[in-house]
Amino acid sequence: MNLKYAIVGSGAIGGYYGGRLANSGCDVHFLFHSDYEHVAANGLKVDSVNGNFVINSINAYKSTTDMPQCDVVLVGLKSTQNHLLPQLLPPLLKSNTLVVLIQNGLGLEGQLAEALPHQPIAGAAAFICSSRVGKGHIFHADYGAITVGMYQGDCQNTIAQMKADFERAAVPFTITRDLNETRWRKLVWNIPYNGLTVALNTSTDRLMANTSTRCLVTDLMNEVVDAAAVCDAVIEREFVDKMLAMTDRMTPYSPSMKLDFDNHRPMEIEAIYTNPVKTALVAGYHMRKTEMLEQELRFIANGI
Amino acid sequence: MNLKYAIVGSGAIGGYYGGRLANSGCDVHFLFHSDYEHVAANGLKVDSVNGNFVINSINAYKSTTDMPQCDVVLVGLKSTQNHLLPQLLPPLLKSNTLVVLIQNGLGLEGQLAEALPHQPIAGAAAFICSSRVGKGHIFHADYGAITVGMYQGDCQNTIAQMKADFERAAVPFTITRDLNETRWRKLVWNIPYNGLTVALNTSTDRLMANTSTRCLVTDLMNEVVDAAAVCDAVIEREFVDKMLAMTDRMTPYSPSMKLDFDNHRPMEIEAIYTNPVKTALVAGYHMRKTEMLEQELRFIANGI
Repeated sequence: MNLKYAIVGSGAIGGYYGGRLANSGCDVHFLFHSDYEHVAANGLKVDSVNGNFVINSINAYKSTTDMPQCDVVLVGLKSTQNHLLPQLLPPLLKSNTLVVLIQNGLGLEGQLAEALPHQPIAGAAAFICSSRVGKGHIFHADYGAITVGMYQGDCQNTIAQMKADFERAAVPFTITRDLNETRWRKLVWNIPYNGLTVALNTSTDRLMANTSTRCLVTDLMNEVVDAAAVCDAVIEREFVDKMLAMTDRMTPYSPSMKLDFDNHRPMEIEAIYTNPVKTALVAGYHMRKTEMLEQELRFIANGI
Repeated sequence: MNLKYAIVGSGAIGGYYGGRLANSGCDVHFLFHSDYEHVAANGLKVDSVNGNFVINSINAYKSTTDMPQCDVVLVGLKSTQNHLLPQLLPPLLKSNTLVVLIQNGLGLEGQLAEALPHQPIAGAAAFICSSRVGKGHIFHADYGAITVGMYQGDCQNTIAQMKADFERAAVPFTITRDLNETRWRKLVWNIPYNGLTVALNTSTDRLMANTSTRCLVTDLMNEVVDAAAVCDAVIEREFVDKMLAMTDRMTPYSPSMKLDFDNHRPMEIEAIYTNPVKTALVAGYHMRKTEMLEQELRFIANGI
């Protein structure tokens, strides 16, 4: 039996992955907010390095109360909106519906599990450069792989089916048995680049070209690896060099937090900074430079 | 016998203290750079919270080669110009001339001592809000006390005479036997406020009003106290609260580094950040947040 997918938050992430799935023939139902009318009339447009496509006959909705119950709910909202999930999700949920948070940061699955203690919940890390460039219009600049791991409950069959669906849709899909490690690994990149591009109003390539900030990026990465270690996530030290080398090869890039800041949207400070710093501190490690970046970002977010 | 003073760098600091001394009848010789013609024609103007005055018949010079040898040389240059001192100073020096660096940061006396290994050298910390607001025009907004301590050689008599001269000129003057402690104490204020007002493009009052940056300021101050301790400078922990309370009472203020940055002048990153971080690291303490601020400032100084 085919999986029925709901996409909650059909922007850079949800729009891209949902679009890929729909384009390959999956049964996908998209929740839109401000883009609803435009998409209902014009479809969802994805411009991708791997080829452009448009989903014309799209299942688009303005409210989850109009949507069918699904087998998988892919949450592509910014984590700053996660307080809405306890209201948004219930109409989509059967008892065995798997909710997958495709989001950055730490601690989000735990927060959702408090609201939905009996629902299967997974987390996913997307290694992708994509952004919403206009109404119902996603630009996919690079990468695209996704890694998924269970947080609460057991849905191995559903995840295996998802893997098949995503791979048919040309999305590299990895199943992890250690979501915690996946989350910390993602933070090795996210913590330096998201915050510093905002705090210093710059781009990844400039951070890498300056000796001092290249060193600071490295310090922050090492701090995340040290923090991960005390939080039961073993990341080999070479991963830092790998992330630096990968960023050197990337085209100049504005991370999601920089795009949020430039577009006057809330920044994901809580998930990407506050939660990791707190979690590591409880485990006995003080992420001092990460904490300082968080402090600076909170000042900047205050609208000065 | 009265002391003959040379002022090298007659700006916010040198112009103020030299002006006060000249105004009270001392024999003061001022080195000017871009302001020379203006001052030669119009005198040196000091607008002070304690009363305005103008030095009309001023001993102004364009080059130290035109100046007389003096008993005391007060250096009020930005420390970013200290590489010029080995060329600037010799015409002013007798064997017992005391060179006093009225500058911010750490390690400057040691650098000068390498160039002038037999010259008496002192350091001074000025607790003052003053700025150069125009050609030959100093604005003194608040405070004004100065603390002086020997670094190399022994000039107790000269320093005692200086104290009498400064106090006659209405400048509170303290002699310290521990210049190292005085320098570190000054850094407790300078390290957080100078760098953060630049990095976050803000003012002291806004840093204090935001919960996160108020916490960051406190963290940085505590880091300086911890660093001082391993560098043989004992600063009581209550000094941090004292500095915070003092800053709360201050009118919104742009520290010298912020003024330098806003006016596209070089920032004193080396003296205020690099030297303390290096000195503490050698002594066994890693000033992580201070180092991060240094890294951010070096990126900003690079003109991005």
